[in-house]
Amino acid sequence: MINKKSESAVSAAVIKRLPRYFRYLRMLLNENKLRISSNDLAELMGVTASQIRQDLNCFGGFGQQGYGYNVTYLYGKISEILGVNENYQAIIIGAGRLGQALAASPIFTKRGVEVCGLFDISPEVIGKEVDGKKILHIDEVKHFVENNVVDIAVLTLPTPFAEEAVELVQSLGIPGIWNFTSHDMNHIPGCTVQNVHMGDSLMMLCYDIRNLDNNNEV
Amino acid sequence: MINKKSESAVSAAVIKRLPRYFRYLRMLLNENKLRISSNDLAELMGVTASQIRQDLNCFGGFGQQGYGYNVTYLYGKISEILGVNENYQAIIIGAGRLGQALAASPIFTKRGVEVCGLFDISPEVIGKEVDGKKILHIDEVKHFVENNVVDIAVLTLPTPFAEEAVELVQSLGIPGIWNFTSHDMNHIPGCTVQNVHMGDSLMMLCYDIRNLDNNNEV
Repeated sequence: MINKKSESAVSAAVIKRLPRYFRYLRMLLNENKLRISSNDLAELMGVTASQIRQDLNCFGGFGQQGYGYNVTYLYGKISEILGVNENYQAIIIGAGRLGQALAASPIFTKRGVEVCGLFDISPEVIGKEVDGKKILHIDEVKHFVENNVVDIAVLTLPTPFAEEAVELVQSLGIPGIWNFTSHDMNHIPGCTVQNVHMGDSLMMLCYDIRNLDNNNEV
Repeated sequence: MINKKSESAVSAAVIKRLPRYFRYLRMLLNENKLRISSNDLAELMGVTASQIRQDLNCFGGFGQQGYGYNVTYLYGKISEILGVNENYQAIIIGAGRLGQALAASPIFTKRGVEVCGLFDISPEVIGKEVDGKKILHIDEVKHFVENNVVDIAVLTLPTPFAEEAVELVQSLGIPGIWNFTSHDMNHIPGCTVQNVHMGDSLMMLCYDIRNLDNNNEV
């Protein structure tokens, strides 16, 4: 377990930037680059070297003057801070195309999360196997959660069922919700939520494209 | 086309909040609520009524004293500002599970975007139909783009191929990239990009869950 005192000194803004460091460090590891200077990392990430030094010094200075950062160590440390090594387990509620796509993608395993169950209501998918796991009827979820530690509920069901799903997740005592519906989920007692809201991102893209058009016209 | 003068007065912060208004207004329309006061909308969205009045007044005051907002009109106006009615066309590059899931989901049509083509390199999926559209080999994309207006390239291919895909999209002159790889795409000349970075969202969720745990332990 990580030292709480040192962590509490880290601002929310730095924490929010850590997944990006995590991604770049993973890339470096994949390329067998085991050491990097703050200048090189800065150039790679498109930020200033002083920003990097400031961010990473929060955790007690992983860097050494004249040596740079040890990529493996830094990657491990950031993983630890972000909770990547906690072996969280997730269930997917709504095993349609998106739910199945997520379950079969490396997005979870790359971050130390295991998908342990998939649930749906549609007879068309129930019984089907995704990545070696059978899709179960949602009626079985209570029994499942009683017999497995489940930390995350991934909500990939249609938006009209989102509120019902949140009540279910709360009643099951699952602490984390990863929300792919377009329903806003804020301040759910007993749960922490990350809303993906892919549609919002698509709309901002449309807005930006239209503005490119307008700028070109002027 | 919308009045550019009035739009240029709208801050980026307000624009960023518009997709959320769009979602809530769509929900109201689905429930046949055609009129709403700023107070009721504020309560629904968990913001202050004065914030709502400020945001929406930017576009020339859709509300009427004592009447509230006309939901249909407001929805239409926000759609227009966001470019939802521009009938943008998208191609999906990487028609694996995630690409297929997106192509078959209502996420595009809800926002006025049409998926007109899917491309991949894997013989396992080429020729397969998704939502009435055949998955084509990526070698056919140049010919396709020459014969169709394509505004958006959705990148749902594995991250190691992301850079190659960006070069392709640039060479094809497609102005918008919706990026689902974990590769950062910023400042791509000639393109505007929205990065989804689902993995970052999952990591923030893990971080928050771990902090819930710690807080409960203390």
